[in-house]
This record gives sequence, structure tokens and C-alpha cells, in this order.
Amino acid sequence: MKQDPKKIGKYEILTESYLLDFNGKVPLSMIGNYLVHAASSHASECGYGFNEMAERHTAWVLSKLAIEILEYPSISEKLTLYTWIEQISRYICNRNFEIVNANGKQLALARSIWAAINIQTRRPTSLLGIGMEKFLSDKACPISTPIKIRPLSDNYATSIPYGVKYSDLDLNKHVNSIKYIEHMLDLFELDMYKTSEIKRLEVNYYAEAQYGMQLTLHKQLISEKKYNLAIRHEDKVFCRAAVTWK
Amino acid sequence: MKQDPKKIGKYEILTESYLLDFNGKVPLSMIGNYLVHAASSHASECGYGFNEMAERHTAWVLSKLAIEILEYPSISEKLTLYTWIEQISRYICNRNFEIVNANGKQLALARSIWAAINIQTRRPTSLLGIGMEKFLSDKACPISTPIKIRPLSDNYATSIPYGVKYSDLDLNKHVNSIKYIEHMLDLFELDMYKTSEIKRLEVNYYAEAQYGMQLTLHKQLISEKKYNLAIRHEDKVFCRAAVTWK
Repeated sequence: MKQDPKKIGKYEILTESYLLDFNGKVPLSMIGNYLVHAASSHASECGYGFNEMAERHTAWVLSKLAIEILEYPSISEKLTLYTWIEQISRYICNRNFEIVNANGKQLALARSIWAAINIQTRRPTSLLGIGMEKFLSDKACPISTPIKIRPLSDNYATSIPYGVKYSDLDLNKHVNSIKYIEHMLDLFELDMYKTSEIKRLEVNYYAEAQYGMQLTLHKQLISEKKYNLAIRHEDKVFCRAAVTWK
Repeated sequence: MKQDPKKIGKYEILTESYLLDFNGKVPLSMIGNYLVHAASSHASECGYGFNEMAERHTAWVLSKLAIEILEYPSISEKLTLYTWIEQISRYICNRNFEIVNANGKQLALARSIWAAINIQTRRPTSLLGIGMEKFLSDKACPISTPIKIRPLSDNYATSIPYGVKYSDLDLNKHVNSIKYIEHMLDLFELDMYKTSEIKRLEVNYYAEAQYGMQLTLHKQLISEKKYNLAIRHEDKVFCRAAVTWK
């Protein structure tokens, strides 16, 4: 018997030259966009997309994300993105990803954790009993799960102000989850991108930043090639990230 | 006899939900990315793409751009982009664009002016006698040509500092032409985007900004619904734009 093809979503992407970084590689934030695209498309096909969730007055919110890059895609590469749901609990959905190139070579793996919130109350809503369980897949994703990232110590962190702009906002009228990543990764000097690559990125999302909000972007060296990053507004943490360089 | 299909490049794009703005519309800067994508793809197919130009130690540089939007595309729209060369002179190539939706409705028209520079000297190089003339098309593009935008008067302009970041750079190791547009359009308050739309954008490019450069972004009201914008570094103008709102 054929397995339900919807259990593993499959999407093709051609890397666009205008979206490459100065090294001719797809930036990590753009890979994040690819993942969100795959997640949204698969959720829609399963009947839990943006529109279907909105009809139930709910919306998906990205809670945690971990991406490991084996090889950065470059110009005009035809990529295939796979995405599937590994686990569903009361308030949490674990969705995994694999990116392979045209030769079938694995370029990246990722794990994400999503919650569904009520649009009015912004509180989590139950994911049980709405029929999502039939889409669970046991496809392997051999990278570790995103964990809770420790707070930065105030003493040694780089701190840069950032005001939220029109181009940061997405459909939900808050800062796009991937824009958080773009702004945090801009804290690294160009020399680091010239001589090395980010191997693993982990993000914890806490709050949704709004237009005009004055944020601060923070960076701190934790150990060799490991950094913790954060985005705050006044004393509140909006987002934390952990980055491991090659 | 069949017309050479290469004279008019045709490209399909599906609008991605993660790239929409807070209104659920494709932002004007993203439409700029679509145009650059179509221009690059068509130039490659004709034998004058990024790689072929690099072999001759040359590169395309966008000099002027005008975009008129009749209707902003929204979520999951299948767009068709057409692009063709209208005119070639010694140092200038005029390339036009049309964007239509799945019903064949015209959504946008654009005109662009490109120069080819020598990669080492950064000086213009001749476009005559390299065989581009055979791709000329007389397809109509009923919008006015981008003209020279007048300097802002220093007195009344909004002025915001901006430091060039990793995410601003493209393959040419300078700020991406479309990122200039994104940063300038961020000078408008969200309320303007809530109540109106940009009908026409015109951009003049003068210089290529580099990593770490401290730029200033300027905005000035010229007449009702018309603004001039500029990007400078110290006293040098890098870019000017003119925006007409609906």
C-alpha cells in the first residue's frame, strides 16, 4: 500500500542569484525562508495552513528552530526541500526538514517547534483532536533538538540599537521570524563570513516585535566558535540564538 | 516564420507568503527583485549573463529604474514576468518589463537602464559589436522612461543614519541595488502603507556602497503624494529615488 504522500511534503526551489551573499552562497536567513515556505506549503496541503488556521481564529507561531548546514547552496542550484511532522503534543508540533541538491546530496537538516495561538488572546490553543496525528512521519532527522538557550550575561555583550521598520513586518503584522535571524547574523563582522561558515544555528522565539519598537541586538562569545545572541526591547527578551561556526 | 523566442524572456514566479508585507501584498522591493531575476535570466539565455560578462572582465550595473504598479500581487499568485531589450547604444542598454497575473491581467510595467563596466577599472565598456542587437524587441512598454532625479535641498530632508551590513551585500560585494530601494522605502511611516500605495518608483544609481560604510537616508516631500529620496555617504550621492503615492 502506498504511504500517504502528504506525510512528507516535497518542494522544489531554484536558488536565485539576487538573493546570494557576497560569497555567492545562499545566506542562512534565506535558508530559514525556504524552511518557512516548505512548512507553510505542507501545512496548507494537510488542511492546517494560514487560511484554515485563521478560520479557527488561530495562527501558527514559531517557537524554536535549529538548522545545521552541511554545505551552503550556491548560484542556480535546484534544491528539494522535504518537511514532515515528527510529533504532536497538546501545545507543540515538532516539524523537521531536509534540503538536498539536484544530485541528491544532503545540504541541510533542520528541526522546528511550533505552537498554535488564539489570534485574539495570543494564548496557546490545543493541537489534539483536530486530526493532525494522521500526518505523523518517522523519517529520520539526525540533528539534535533545539533547546532552551541561556540568557547572555549583561557584562560582555555587544549591544546595537535597532528600530523596527516596514520591511521587517510580515502578514501577521509583527517582525518576520526570519528577519530576527537576519538582524542577529548581521552582528558578525564580514571577516568571519570571509574565513568561516555558520555550521549550526538555534533560535528561541519569545515575543513578537511591533512596528517602530526600539530593539537592541546583543552578541556574546561563549566558547571557541560559539556565540549567543539575543534581541531585547527594554528588559524583555524577544528572541535568543546560539551560533556555532565551523 | 517564428520570431526568435529569446527576444522576449518569459519567467514564472509564485508569490511566497513569507515575503509579503503586513498588508499581504508583495512589497515593491520584492517586485524589484523579481525584475532583476528576470533581467539576469534573460541576459544569461542570450549569452550576456553574469558568467559570460565576467569572462570578458565586465559586469552589468543598474543605472536607472522605473516601476509602475497597477495592482500589487498578493498571496500565492502565479505571476508571469516578461522582459526584453528595447534599445542598445554605446554605453547603455534599455531593458523593459511587464508583469501579468494568471488571468493575463497586467499588474506592473518597468523600464531599466544598464551599463556594462570593466571589473578592474569600474569604467563603462562598449556594448556595440558584441552581437546584442539581434535581441532587440519592439514590444510596447507604455510608461515613461526614468529621468534624472533632482537633488534634495538639504534644508527640509529627513535624514537617518544607516551602516552597511552583511545582509545588504550581493555577489558583487557591494550593496544590492534592490536593498537601496528597501532602505529608502523604510523611510515612509507605516500609516502611509496602511492608507495608500506607491504607484510609481524611479531610481537613479550613482555609486556602489561597501561593507561598514556609514550612509545617510534622506526623504523630502516635493508636492502632494510625491517624495524624493536619496542615499549619501558624507557629501557623495550614492542613489536617488522619486516616489509617487496613489
